Amino acid sequence: MENYELLKNIKCPADVRGMSEQELEILCSQIRAKLIETVSVTGGHLASNLGTVELTVALHKSFNSPEDSVIWDVGHQSYTHKLLTGRYSRFSTLRQKDGISGFTRPDESEHDLFYSGHAGVSVSQAAGVAAVNALKGNKNYAVAVIGDGSFTNGMVYEALDAAGSKFSRLIVVLNDNEMSISENVGSLARHLAVVRAKPEYYRFKAGTEKTLNRIPLVGKAVSNHIFKLKTALKNLIYSSSFFEDLGFRYIGPVDGHNITQLCEAMDAAKLVNQPVLLHVNTLKGKGYDFAENSPEKFHGVSRFDTRTGESTIAGDSFSEKFGELLSAFAAKDKRICAVTAAMGIGTGLERFAAEFPERFFDVGIAEEHALTFCSGLAAGGFIPVFAVYSTFFQRCYDQVVHDAALQGRKMIIAVDRAGFVGNDGETHQGIYDVSMLSGVPNVKIYSPCTYQELGNALYNAFYKDDCVVVIRYPRSGELRIPDGIEKKSVYDVYPHADASAAIVTYGRMFSFACEAVDRLVQQGIDIKAVKLNVIKPLDEECVQSVADCGRIYFYEEGVRSGGAGEGFALMLLEKGYKGRFCLRAVENRFVPHESVSQQLERCGLDCDAMVEFIKNDFDTVGDCCE
Amino acid sequence: MENYELLKNIKCPADVRGMSEQELEILCSQIRAKLIETVSVTGGHLASNLGTVELTVALHKSFNSPEDSVIWDVGHQSYTHKLLTGRYSRFSTLRQKDGISGFTRPDESEHDLFYSGHAGVSVSQAAGVAAVNALKGNKNYAVAVIGDGSFTNGMVYEALDAAGSKFSRLIVVLNDNEMSISENVGSLARHLAVVRAKPEYYRFKAGTEKTLNRIPLVGKAVSNHIFKLKTALKNLIYSSSFFEDLGFRYIGPVDGHNITQLCEAMDAAKLVNQPVLLHVNTLKGKGYDFAENSPEKFHGVSRFDTRTGESTIAGDSFSEKFGELLSAFAAKDKRICAVTAAMGIGTGLERFAAEFPERFFDVGIAEEHALTFCSGLAAGGFIPVFAVYSTFFQRCYDQVVHDAALQGRKMIIAVDRAGFVGNDGETHQGIYDVSMLSGVPNVKIYSPCTYQELGNALYNAFYKDDCVVVIRYPRSGELRIPDGIEKKSVYDVYPHADASAAIVTYGRMFSFACEAVDRLVQQGIDIKAVKLNVIKPLDEECVQSVADCGRIYFYEEGVRSGGAGEGFALMLLEKGYKGRFCLRAVENRFVPHESVSQQLERCGLDCDAMVEFIKNDFDTVGDCCE
Repeated sequence: MENYELLKNIKCPADVRGMSEQELEILCSQIRAKLIETVSVTGGHLASNLGTVELTVALHKSFNSPEDSVIWDVGHQSYTHKLLTGRYSRFSTLRQKDGISGFTRPDESEHDLFYSGHAGVSVSQAAGVAAVNALKGNKNYAVAVIGDGSFTNGMVYEALDAAGSKFSRLIVVLNDNEMSISENVGSLARHLAVVRAKPEYYRFKAGTEKTLNRIPLVGKAVSNHIFKLKTALKNLIYSSSFFEDLGFRYIGPVDGHNITQLCEAMDAAKLVNQPVLLHVNTLKGKGYDFAENSPEKFHGVSRFDTRTGESTIAGDSFSEKFGELLSAFAAKDKRICAVTAAMGIGTGLERFAAEFPERFFDVGIAEEHALTFCSGLAAGGFIPVFAVYSTFFQRCYDQVVHDAALQGRKMIIAVDRAGFVGNDGETHQGIYDVSMLSGVPNVKIYSPCTYQELGNALYNAFYKDDCVVVIRYPRSGELRIPDGIEKKSVYDVYPHADASAAIVTYGRMFSFACEAVDRLVQQGIDIKAVKLNVIKPLDEECVQSVADCGRIYFYEEGVRSGGAGEGFALMLLEKGYKGRFCLRAVENRFVPHESVSQQLERCGLDCDAMVEFIKNDFDTVGDCCE
Repeated sequence: MENYELLKNIKCPADVRGMSEQELEILCSQIRAKLIETVSVTGGHLASNLGTVELTVALHKSFNSPEDSVIWDVGHQSYTHKLLTGRYSRFSTLRQKDGISGFTRPDESEHDLFYSGHAGVSVSQAAGVAAVNALKGNKNYAVAVIGDGSFTNGMVYEALDAAGSKFSRLIVVLNDNEMSISENVGSLARHLAVVRAKPEYYRFKAGTEKTLNRIPLVGKAVSNHIFKLKTALKNLIYSSSFFEDLGFRYIGPVDGHNITQLCEAMDAAKLVNQPVLLHVNTLKGKGYDFAENSPEKFHGVSRFDTRTGESTIAGDSFSEKFGELLSAFAAKDKRICAVTAAMGIGTGLERFAAEFPERFFDVGIAEEHALTFCSGLAAGGFIPVFAVYSTFFQRCYDQVVHDAALQGRKMIIAVDRAGFVGNDGETHQGIYDVSMLSGVPNVKIYSPCTYQELGNALYNAFYKDDCVVVIRYPRSGELRIPDGIEKKSVYDVYPHADASAAIVTYGRMFSFACEAVDRLVQQGIDIKAVKLNVIKPLDEECVQSVADCGRIYFYEEGVRSGGAGEGFALMLLEKGYKGRFCLRAVENRFVPHESVSQQLERCGLDCDAMVEFIKNDFDTVGDCCE
């Protein structure tokens, strides 16, 4: 049993401010122990949190949250922040049903200003807060804490560019753990000395700057020369002209595991009358050998054994199968390329990357560019496959319309993590993509429910379809499908086509539907399960096949509005359907963190709920046929 | 009558290559005359095209299109390109029905590789093409031509970051007309001498670099010092560390109106074995006084008088009214802020910007940042209003979900150019936003059809609603609405509620619906027009109010799938509606350039089409009531 003496008595950030240097060191080691202990049981983001322990402590020592806003980009590194802002006692509930979230949430604490989960938004948010502080005329700071990975995202540049030179009291803390920042920014920045972050240095620099600005600019040739000289001299001092060019004062890099240096740098940043980019170097996984050695593996983890670092959960997955299948296709067809936005491992592309490095493109957390880059590959006659999580796919709606569908060229988008995703909660759910794509012309959507169907969808996409093809599949693996499925052209039926009621669904929900049908049939209800293999465009024949059913229950693991069920309803109504139709889907709300089963249950979409709802409907609503 | 002797004989870019310097100068002046003559009649983008005449001629002289790909960002500056690639004889049909488009289109010419219209995509596309060229092992160049305005868009940085140091034969031509690039990039770059662009300079630079690289790196302290020295020296030579940091070799700036210099710079760029950023200075509106003096006014113009530069089309608009209303609200409520992504004038915010400069934020062409910045303003207790064209709103779908709706704070999005937009065509239609938003929780959508309703919607958004509020309205002004409208809670009826058939619609279509109803009633058909004032969430009461109509015709100026009509159909079906329902909307296709009336007619959505369709439906489909 670990000793959390110091940690457990912290109720708010002010408690950190009163601690001695030695106490802070002990505090940090207690935090690390607590992180490892908890995440080994609950799963979650480990390496990133181990890397930001001192940084978080320093932030809460130097800034006065919540008056000063500390805004966490993505939020997956906010565990220490949670421990220091009154959530120690609930920390074991991390990512569990009704427990605290793995990301920041305003409804958990006044120290969390935003719900978080997606990358690259924190600088924009902080800029907004800084604008309000300026308008209100208060002296509060807005601090964005953002990893080097997020710096590959275009939003960050938009925000730096728009905010640069504009707001003071806006501080962007670049948490550089060398995981994914572009080589160039990294290679320049890494060579800078820590000394620059010290307040004395800033006084020195201010003096030098004054001197430089006194050099008169006379005559064009001379001024050109002197300008260059000044720029060069400034670069000798300033070090990162990249951020300076964007209107930010650069401070760094600072040792992100040295609280004293961090606090000095932050105090220096507060003195600068301009937006500041504070560059902090941290080690992902710091303090836990297994995580230090394999930070990627410990980025997001399932339950694991703390002594061995080994996951205690196993099993195959659609991601893995997708990667295998894609490699097999690519081996035979040299036109096939794979593109990912920093999710090469998550989407199962490791093997592809190893086997076909010249056809594998990881563009960073840059979904917009990824999709439009694919558009360029397609224009050159290649077949790009963009593998992306459903939730991050949301980043490139316009690119799907403008750079994919409109161009009329073949492109494949493999949408992973479609449907509920479990413990990551609201910001990661894959329940919007079908609705998002509903109105986009020239898009076909496959929704495979088995690995076999995934392979078929890929085959069709490569060699039969001639449009933008989206293939969406869930996190984790395939579920059991009973024998005796009747295969129609683009839909499947179970157990036989001539039942007088139907459950219509797609994707993994078909597994639940089949089981529900078995149970309902046992209870004397004549019902079939129908699976749509292609959910856009909807198949007329399939709609026709249920048009004489007196009752249709459409089940959808996605939002109700704009989804496939709504389109199905329209087709039925326009065909003059006069029976009973019920759409069971995710109502218009956000679905919080808990297990996938719990999310299905919460939304009335699991097998039990199907059986109960349909049984009850038969019992209470009379015959619906004409 | 102008003399187009040289211009009219150009059938393809090769014809340009054979011309003497003097001929090229004459050619350019003929092109300018043709541009002014044509755009004064057809409307279109004038200033940007006048600014890129020499640049385009030089591109087609230095590069070998279509083997080399010249890719135009946005495409609104591609008129000269069209004149040089076989479209001279059709040029007078610019932006007209069945004529050539104001943007690039692969179906017009093999020299247009992409359909264009949105900003910031060209570098990603060119990177994709460069990747294919590399995989194929050919020697073709991929050239993106992109304005400084687009450089405020994050996608460009994503692309530069991902492509930097990676591809050779990738050239990004930055067309800097000083309209909107960030001060910093501009201020650094503007001081560089033209001489650097010459090939001899590159030989000199290569030599210097070799020397620098020979300085040995021994000992940490020494190496640090020498590294800094090298960096500083390199900056003295290289000039723009900003682009160099992103992995691009910088060349420039070059006088964009000097064909000889342009060609020299392009030839130099071809020799560099690395991606190149070629910085070209141009003058927007060059060669036409009115446009040079008011480039913003001549960015996109309607028909105008070439002698006076004055528009020959006038009239009020929703944009203008929106700006007036917003200023009036903001005068009384200091929390109201306005945010635009480089569309301050287009969205009618000039007055707001002048009256409340501290609460007006133009963030550049950065819709993602704009929306998330609003999220920050809202978190600080202010009320942000983001004014954006429907088509560019597509850029921030994820931000609407993640940074607006999920956060649960009040934000207002004023969606201008909703519905058909006319001559800009496919890439600018505002027909997707309703479908795009269908599945997003916590979003309310108003669709005003008069200025009065626009004011009411804004009032409700500010003082009654507590969610993300979208207010969408069309380009141009309000249409005639007859007297005798019956006002219900959130819907209107004309002429009376108890008709046995209904046209249900929203926005400006209500004007057509009322006229259609008048005409149908005259023909003995008992029908009413129903207008939804709020299209999300759909109003149960309104659905109920037509549930006993035997026939419902839902008309929607937007895509069919995922729109309001589909949701309406679902509600009817779930309520057990047994009558006839027809949804008339934009089928799943892209709608090309022509006038708004022609687009309405093409899609069967104008008043005549309504009358014809409904009359015919009554004549051919028997009684639908039970």
